[in-house]
Amino acid sequence: MKEFETTYPDDNYTVHVGHGIFKETLNLYTSRYEDVFYIIDENVHHAFKTTALKDIEDPVITRPGEAAKTAEAFIGIVESLLERGIKRSSLVVVIGGGAAGDAGGFAAAVTLRGVDFIQVPTTLLAHDSAIGGKTAINSRHGKNLIGAFHRPSGVIYDLDFLSTLPESEILSGFGEVYKHALLDSEKAARDLMEQTAHGVKAADLEDSLIKGIRTKMRYVTEDEFESGSRKYLNLGHTLGHAIEYEYKIQHGHAVMLGLYAMMFISNEQSESRIFDLESHHTYFSNLGYPMELLGTLDPGRMLKHMKHDKKNISDASVGFILMDKDFEPFFTEISTDEMVKYIGALKESL
Amino acid sequence: MKEFETTYPDDNYTVHVGHGIFKETLNLYTSRYEDVFYIIDENVHHAFKTTALKDIEDPVITRPGEAAKTAEAFIGIVESLLERGIKRSSLVVVIGGGAAGDAGGFAAAVTLRGVDFIQVPTTLLAHDSAIGGKTAINSRHGKNLIGAFHRPSGVIYDLDFLSTLPESEILSGFGEVYKHALLDSEKAARDLMEQTAHGVKAADLEDSLIKGIRTKMRYVTEDEFESGSRKYLNLGHTLGHAIEYEYKIQHGHAVMLGLYAMMFISNEQSESRIFDLESHHTYFSNLGYPMELLGTLDPGRMLKHMKHDKKNISDASVGFILMDKDFEPFFTEISTDEMVKYIGALKESL
Ligand SMILES: NC(=O)c1ccc[n+]([C@@H]2O[C@H](COP(=O)([O-])OP(=O)(O)OC[C@H]3O[C@@H](n4cnc5c(N)ncnc54)[C@H](O)[C@@H]3O)[C@@H](O)[C@H]2O)c1
Ligand SMILES: NC(=O)c1ccc[n+]([C@@H]2O[C@H](COP(=O)([O-])OP(=O)(O)OC[C@H]3O[C@@H](n4cnc5c(N)ncnc54)[C@H](O)[C@@H]3O)[C@@H](O)[C@H]2O)c1
Repeated sequence: MKEFETTYPDDNYTVHVGHGIFKETLNLYTSRYEDVFYIIDENVHHAFKTTALKDIEDPVITRPGEAAKTAEAFIGIVESLLERGIKRSSLVVVIGGGAAGDAGGFAAAVTLRGVDFIQVPTTLLAHDSAIGGKTAINSRHGKNLIGAFHRPSGVIYDLDFLSTLPESEILSGFGEVYKHALLDSEKAARDLMEQTAHGVKAADLEDSLIKGIRTKMRYVTEDEFESGSRKYLNLGHTLGHAIEYEYKIQHGHAVMLGLYAMMFISNEQSESRIFDLESHHTYFSNLGYPMELLGTLDPGRMLKHMKHDKKNISDASVGFILMDKDFEPFFTEISTDEMVKYIGALKESL
Repeated sequence: MKEFETTYPDDNYTVHVGHGIFKETLNLYTSRYEDVFYIIDENVHHAFKTTALKDIEDPVITRPGEAAKTAEAFIGIVESLLERGIKRSSLVVVIGGGAAGDAGGFAAAVTLRGVDFIQVPTTLLAHDSAIGGKTAINSRHGKNLIGAFHRPSGVIYDLDFLSTLPESEILSGFGEVYKHALLDSEKAARDLMEQTAHGVKAADLEDSLIKGIRTKMRYVTEDEFESGSRKYLNLGHTLGHAIEYEYKIQHGHAVMLGLYAMMFISNEQSESRIFDLESHHTYFSNLGYPMELLGTLDPGRMLKHMKHDKKNISDASVGFILMDKDFEPFFTEISTDEMVKYIGALKESL
């Protein structure tokens, strides 16, 4: 097991990562509280209720995945905690992917105006969502628009939970793992690429996940409330979100396509070969990402979606994260005209 | 107009109190924001839509009073803000009594994970609720169980709004005004009693409201997250809540009865005459508080309700705020047996 502390100015917490660490590590926390309440993703509960989760009594079961993040489901979670007699001095333990984590974390944030909670991520992507203290549910008007900053008291990332994760979820989560490797260093990205050249096996990713958590933590600690460098975590996401929205594909798949487009535009803008596009194209395709969709992008519709993104306010340009020759991310404004050109060139290059 | 600053270690804000100050004072704030969104209590909007509120376009209207604090109404407020295109950099202005203030403040707390907001209290009681940064809605399992600590960026308390407040609301709000006077000093309480001996006129209460705000602010600043001295603000509330629950009377009416009981018990416990009970009884009765209900209290049922209160955890005793000979509040545990005796003696004394 690896353990490390966040590096905020105060209220730090420990992230525990390893195999089979759930029960013992959780005890360290629960023993300090009079009452403990569990919020568990339905699919996770189903998969582990006779094994890792068998001692848990009367948990609040959330609808699987994103369905936990509607306002109605969310209110249901909060009312269930109150019905069970939660107190301000209780502990909430949230077990599930990013969706259960977001909804359960937000429930902990507002029940009795804030109760301590522990995140137990069970997906690959949740190595990302469990760090940073952001919690949220979805609005009728967009994703993650209702929420709170509420840091967990600890994160217990037991990689054994990943064993039951469907293939497509692994691939989707791997998009963020790869993004974090890019943000970490050229070497980290290259190593990860080599390690997974023949497929992504969640069980083998311990080191990369730990590195990813550290990278996310670095950006988040520098900038908890997202005014500056935290936006680099949006690497690949500006176009990624537009692709996700247009083609209704999974988030991480769209992010991977967005990362490829980011590489392409970074090369174009710098007029140099920061990224070896060919080998990345082959690598992403082989892993199973739908690279062919990039050939069908409609620049007008992409721009429309990007404008809709809450981070893009101006009309004449799009805020975008690129990477420079030193493999450092930077923020830039790309004018609407340029963006149309880049998307056109990207399509031709394929 | 009187203005004063809160005295937190950081993130302080100004409380403005006066007559006819709304428009001009609000301008000081709104001019710093690109967009401003209004949340207004339906009754307040109805009463002032052709006067003080006539320039406000497309406000979010909340259901009147407590009806704004259901989960459904609350989600409706948040969705309405998002529908209107609120941004993190926007300002929310909440205009109404404590209920609209609680629901609107909580909406500002969680929309886009937190947007600045201004409180514009329009009831007597809201001199209390607008201070302290507590926001909340109601659960099926109890009042104010879902919420956040979210300080306003300013409070604009224009007493002209009080002109349309129904008599019973004035009386209810006055319960908290009187409580704050007791917590302030013996002299403040006596002065207020003299000033209102022939009835409560909201328009004349400017000085007492300002003193009340200062008193609340003092306790709240000392103890924002309610672990210590803030609990003195519960003066009169332990039994008050039980009475409110049992007789379904308005909060402030029940608090006033609770304050009378507190005076009685404080005298009994100290075996001295801290409070002149006769003159208080006459005073409260003359103002219109249902003092006769105190003669019908069922000790068993009162205890049951008090146990239900989230602040009372132990089984054998009840946490209670009394006042000592120096007119200072203090916290004490009153055993169940003693409490039954005190209630009995109180009934006999009437
Ligand atoms: N808070 C943040 O900082 C942050 C960051 C990134 C993403 N997110 C959020 O995370 C969510 C996506 O998270 P996700 O990708 O983990 O998806 P998810 O939580 O929706 O889970 C995906 C699916 O896998 C199932 N599942 C989860 N763990 C399982 C397991 N161990 N075995 C079998 N099935 C399992 C779930 O029931 C669901 O059907 C989105 O809502 C996104 O907005 C939040
Ligand atoms: N956050 C806190 O610290 C705190 C403290 C005390 C009370 N509260 C909350 O405050 C609420 C009670 O507040 P309240 O007593 O102000 O009642 P309220 O907000 O429910 O208003 C009472 C009634 O008066 C109407 N009204 C309000 N202003 C008016 C005006 N100027 N003219 C005509 N009608 C008007 C309302 O529509 C409502 O029908 C409760 O929900 C309580 O939990 C919060």
